[in-house]
Amino acid sequence: MASETEAVPRAYKVIGTRPIRHDGIEKVTGQALYGADVTLSGMLYGKVLRSPHAHARIRSVDTSRAEAHPDVRAVATSADLAALGDAPDGSAAALSLKLVRDNVLASDRVLYRGQAVAAVAAASPHVAEEALALIDVDYEVLASVTNVKAAMAPDAPVLHEHLLDDQGGGTNVAVHEQHRWGDIEAGFEQAALVFEREFRTKTVHQGYIEPQNGTASWTPDGRLTIWCSSQGHFGIRDGSARVLGLPVSQINVVPMEIGGGFGGKLKVYLEPVAAVLSRKSGHPVQLTMSRIDVLEATGPTSGSLVRIKLGVTTDGRITAAQAYYAFESGAYPGAAPIQAAAAAILAPYQIDNILIDAYDVVDNKPMSSAYRAPGAPIVVYAVESVIDEICEALEMDPVEFRLLNVAEEGSRRADGVMNGRIGARETMDAIRAHPHYSAPLDDKFTGRGVGMGFCRNNTGPSSVVAHVLSNGTVSLVEGSVDIGGSRTAVAQQLAEVLGIPVTDVVPTVADTDTIGYTSSTGGSGVAFKTGMAAYEAAHDVVRQIVGRAALVWDVPDEQLEYADGALRHKSDPELRLSFKEIAGMLDETGGPVTGRATLNPTGHGGSYSADIVDVEVDPETGKVQILRLTAFQDAGTAVHPAYVEGQIQGGTVQGIGWALNEEYFMSEDGRLLNSSLLDYRMPTSLDVPMIEPVIIEVPNPGHPFGVRGVGEANIVAPLAAVANAVYAAIGVRMNDIPMSPAAIVRALNEKTAGTASS
Amino acid sequence: MASETEAVPRAYKVIGTRPIRHDGIEKVTGQALYGADVTLSGMLYGKVLRSPHAHARIRSVDTSRAEAHPDVRAVATSADLAALGDAPDGSAAALSLKLVRDNVLASDRVLYRGQAVAAVAAASPHVAEEALALIDVDYEVLASVTNVKAAMAPDAPVLHEHLLDDQGGGTNVAVHEQHRWGDIEAGFEQAALVFEREFRTKTVHQGYIEPQNGTASWTPDGRLTIWCSSQGHFGIRDGSARVLGLPVSQINVVPMEIGGGFGGKLKVYLEPVAAVLSRKSGHPVQLTMSRIDVLEATGPTSGSLVRIKLGVTTDGRITAAQAYYAFESGAYPGAAPIQAAAAAILAPYQIDNILIDAYDVVDNKPMSSAYRAPGAPIVVYAVESVIDEICEALEMDPVEFRLLNVAEEGSRRADGVMNGRIGARETMDAIRAHPHYSAPLDDKFTGRGVGMGFCRNNTGPSSVVAHVLSNGTVSLVEGSVDIGGSRTAVAQQLAEVLGIPVTDVVPTVADTDTIGYTSSTGGSGVAFKTGMAAYEAAHDVVRQIVGRAALVWDVPDEQLEYADGALRHKSDPELRLSFKEIAGMLDETGGPVTGRATLNPTGHGGSYSADIVDVEVDPETGKVQILRLTAFQDAGTAVHPAYVEGQIQGGTVQGIGWALNEEYFMSEDGRLLNSSLLDYRMPTSLDVPMIEPVIIEVPNPGHPFGVRGVGEANIVAPLAAVANAVYAAIGVRMNDIPMSPAAIVRALNEKTAGTASS
Repeated sequence: MASETEAVPRAYKVIGTRPIRHDGIEKVTGQALYGADVTLSGMLYGKVLRSPHAHARIRSVDTSRAEAHPDVRAVATSADLAALGDAPDGSAAALSLKLVRDNVLASDRVLYRGQAVAAVAAASPHVAEEALALIDVDYEVLASVTNVKAAMAPDAPVLHEHLLDDQGGGTNVAVHEQHRWGDIEAGFEQAALVFEREFRTKTVHQGYIEPQNGTASWTPDGRLTIWCSSQGHFGIRDGSARVLGLPVSQINVVPMEIGGGFGGKLKVYLEPVAAVLSRKSGHPVQLTMSRIDVLEATGPTSGSLVRIKLGVTTDGRITAAQAYYAFESGAYPGAAPIQAAAAAILAPYQIDNILIDAYDVVDNKPMSSAYRAPGAPIVVYAVESVIDEICEALEMDPVEFRLLNVAEEGSRRADGVMNGRIGARETMDAIRAHPHYSAPLDDKFTGRGVGMGFCRNNTGPSSVVAHVLSNGTVSLVEGSVDIGGSRTAVAQQLAEVLGIPVTDVVPTVADTDTIGYTSSTGGSGVAFKTGMAAYEAAHDVVRQIVGRAALVWDVPDEQLEYADGALRHKSDPELRLSFKEIAGMLDETGGPVTGRATLNPTGHGGSYSADIVDVEVDPETGKVQILRLTAFQDAGTAVHPAYVEGQIQGGTVQGIGWALNEEYFMSEDGRLLNSSLLDYRMPTSLDVPMIEPVIIEVPNPGHPFGVRGVGEANIVAPLAAVANAVYAAIGVRMNDIPMSPAAIVRALNEKTAGTASS
Repeated sequence: MASETEAVPRAYKVIGTRPIRHDGIEKVTGQALYGADVTLSGMLYGKVLRSPHAHARIRSVDTSRAEAHPDVRAVATSADLAALGDAPDGSAAALSLKLVRDNVLASDRVLYRGQAVAAVAAASPHVAEEALALIDVDYEVLASVTNVKAAMAPDAPVLHEHLLDDQGGGTNVAVHEQHRWGDIEAGFEQAALVFEREFRTKTVHQGYIEPQNGTASWTPDGRLTIWCSSQGHFGIRDGSARVLGLPVSQINVVPMEIGGGFGGKLKVYLEPVAAVLSRKSGHPVQLTMSRIDVLEATGPTSGSLVRIKLGVTTDGRITAAQAYYAFESGAYPGAAPIQAAAAAILAPYQIDNILIDAYDVVDNKPMSSAYRAPGAPIVVYAVESVIDEICEALEMDPVEFRLLNVAEEGSRRADGVMNGRIGARETMDAIRAHPHYSAPLDDKFTGRGVGMGFCRNNTGPSSVVAHVLSNGTVSLVEGSVDIGGSRTAVAQQLAEVLGIPVTDVVPTVADTDTIGYTSSTGGSGVAFKTGMAAYEAAHDVVRQIVGRAALVWDVPDEQLEYADGALRHKSDPELRLSFKEIAGMLDETGGPVTGRATLNPTGHGGSYSADIVDVEVDPETGKVQILRLTAFQDAGTAVHPAYVEGQIQGGTVQGIGWALNEEYFMSEDGRLLNSSLLDYRMPTSLDVPMIEPVIIEVPNPGHPFGVRGVGEANIVAPLAAVANAVYAAIGVRMNDIPMSPAAIVRALNEKTAGTASS
């Protein structure tokens, strides 16, 4: 199917167009409702008491003074969450629940500053906030550790008693995972040159604009309704059920609009707390985070330590690749994206001999969350930097080098997955063919770099229901939260099958009681999985309306065909009905028509990306200015090119921020020193030029329209591309990020010192 | 199937049980959300300016002073509603739209006191109310007419210019409908005795406790969301679309809980007004009615004039039946339930010769709405009273007389519909067999009466979607507003097919964007039509899980069977999975499972009812006390017997209120004089004894479980039964209702005077 699709591109009518998104006007005019816009009769406001310590034992939590306050309507602590059950204390099940629970409301220990310990509900948020001072927590402060290298040191304070090393001693290494292919020693023996470098990246936050929030209403029959902004309300339902000890069927989660997530809005934080406060007060309760709460107590992504060793022949073939990387998991184990990193680390290349050692390491920071292409930017930054250095050594064009080693269908990724039809070569070809690649660069202190990127993407169960309205429009009910325009991208796939305009589709993201289970909006999966569900649901509609017409015309179903928005008899041209005409006849021919599809598709394709970036470095201030950036990405079939471009631009800017400025500044005692968006320095529109997106379309044979996920790969390439451009500009390899002005100046000074002393 | 069902009743596990309704605890604890509970950010409150005149021409509406008021955020008049379009003025389409529109906001004429003329929105409802005084309406007051007899008089003021009689003169008769079967003259010639009597009934209101309300939010992209309490949010959507000139797909109506409807919450009133105010103000707007608004300006049911003429042989066979009835339609034509009355009027009997003349008559009262078994109580009251008189004259037992003439399968109703399997005989048999029928009655001024009742019931399109959750529960999404426990009655039918407890079904009444078109909750249709959709959706689920298991076990679908909540291989007892087990395996075997059914079923069966009632009449005060009432009804299969009993009791009490006390007292100039629930006298729990319900089950062959509608027939029998009992008590035929104390005293005085003068 892939080759057919490529040879003769199908003439789509809706796929590939750029309609205004269904939720667009509502959002730009400020009328769209987000979690904090929920208002319910009698609603109370909750506030959370958070740990002032990065690491401490909790000796006691005394809420009696708060409970006695006449304006306090309810107080919640970890004692109100799910009991650890019949599982013996220390069993895996009980432990696993305890860790999840403790991240919502701590019980015996706090593991990061800002961790929630208790909460209060009152009619006014100000009263609730003041009443927090009436809760007495007795802490025994412990030594803390807030970076991965220190956390792995032999004398590091140990966070979790259950984590033991091979010798039975305490450790902060939660997971060690190894991927091995071929013969790594033999591979390096074949190499003429071997490069080994070490890289460090800092903890960065997704930086979504809308803080976490949660509103809950617990009715006396034990039914719980939660309103929140998340990337997956089914995940919030399941997470809340677990933390509260409720069956999933007792909770309905209503998805509100979401003001950015990027992987950071998959976990429960406030929702179970709101639920407890509602149960105890008998009122709906709403909680929202401040920006400080968001930065201190939600999940940023891992800081890391990475070592890359590549062996190459003199003619530029990579013979062996070895990687060591340790990612922060934050306070609780298993949260570092080490597996996703293994998928991406060498994805653009075909390498026979690979050895990867990956570590998930706990430290006294908030528990890590996914961040756009989880793990990939960190390790790809390292690999692409080393490749740049190799190309320089071999005096090879960096694109030629990459093409020489390019991964193809049938080759294997580092995580063992066999590549299907991928677009690595097409993406590299696109760099080479782009005018930017050969455009002149003037002035000193400017440089050009390139870098590849990759995200494996993801899939999962998805459900779509489509109701045909009497006026020939279709209401499309889906379970995928819309972050980046997926209402429209999914509606386009439904409309394409039905041959109707996408404006005739009214999409709704329904609550968990109203639509079937749908996995979260993440892994760039929605346009793929929910789009495919929409495709199937549309075909289910077609089958039914064929049946209706067959009934009306008294002919067998098989004599009819549906195409271009109309039903016809294959041999009788008199018998023809447009979709609108049929829609108006449904009630009389057996009732309304509802199509449905539920699936858990495999065959989602990974997406390749690449950047060409020109920078100028101010040697005085160390400021790196992005002069020009062309961002390439294989979108499979671009369902809505404008939104693909938007994803490319957005991801690229986040990658630039990660490369140049963003980082968690931690004090010695584990406090975040830059806990505001003034000090946590994300790029603004003034910091970046217009990013030029280039969409490459290598249709994914695993999807009927060839769709690949497009949300993530774009954040991966900028880190190395910028670092490589900075090297080209100033001759310094920046193997630690962010390449902040201070870091650049320091590196330049070191270089000068080195040159002077040599 | 019917006979089989009767011979060997199927052993249901869920059907016929009495679980607590899913919405029960929420409702009794006051946590259920009704329309007026809706609170939205920035929401304004609207108030409606209503006509002080029963009939007037509107010369002008000047809103400029109100618009200039700084606290007024928007003003709405009829000019803001749908334009009459390209249809030539006076065309049927334009006229029809104009009438609907004028009942929402009047344009050139007001036709009843309380009719909406304009509306104002402000941040406070009090400010909005005060600002109404700033709207200047110039009325030319016209003569009014507020009862059907006066409205049909030759010199009556004419309400609608387009209504013309045969001679081209103005008339208030909007519709004259005739039903004729057999040879009416011959029928009366065969009769030994002919009785002809005239009856009058007053306008009565449904008396639901929750007043009408509507909240609307109109976003700048033209999408409109409406929250309201109604019997059918799809009807509110369609009605609002029409009045506002919007496509139905642009409106989403969110159904809130409903505090009673009984037919009175099918039309739009406030919703389009809220929508206009929201569009003009840019804010959500909420309106709620006061009790005065409800009584003056929503749809009560018709007052009437009825003439019945019956011919019988000496041995008690009815040879001919003639009826004349004129029903008030109120301000706008076509709203009187004259057709439904024709279905019910003679339904218990098999009569060969029938002539019915039915009239729909406009007068200066609010436009009539349906009220529980529309029209049937009025005409059945008349017929059953005449039959009682005939039985007395023939000295026949009233049940024996009825059984002699009983309608059976294959006989024809007055409206021409051929009876299917009906329960008329079984209902009469039940009266005769009941101890109440032969229980002694002591004291003078007490009397016993019987009466039959019937409702044809209704059906319509319905949609159900059922999602299987991973824990083996099912979320049931339906479009039928739940008034009387239908969430549970529908869930029971789903649970029966799946073999799971009804508590494992989580029902949701979804908004119009989220579920397929579903006709209103009326005509006792939900347990039938939506129940059948749930039955079909459950079978759709079963088909899919059979397919999954066939895949897992690698056997053909046909070798598997699903029964008693489990799937088994027909010949391999090892292969067995419970529903819960399968539910936990869905994601891995192809994704979630969603069942769906959309249908527009015929085959809904009519329901028969009957009452035995004992009364005591106080000759001094004229007060009628109901001593005992046994209420019979054929429920088909009683899905939830407790809710069937509740319907029987509720309908019976409403019938008693209609019989004894309720009426619109109108002043000469068309004002309602008893516009509060203190003065509009509905029965309270202190006014009636415990109603003893008797469920008769004659399964309906048109439904897989034999379900008939049960919501309405129960209101029909009490009117005549009470009148017949009053006759038995005091020897006076009460041919006008209500039989209020004043009317009884007057009748007793007339009787005494008559006896004295004779």
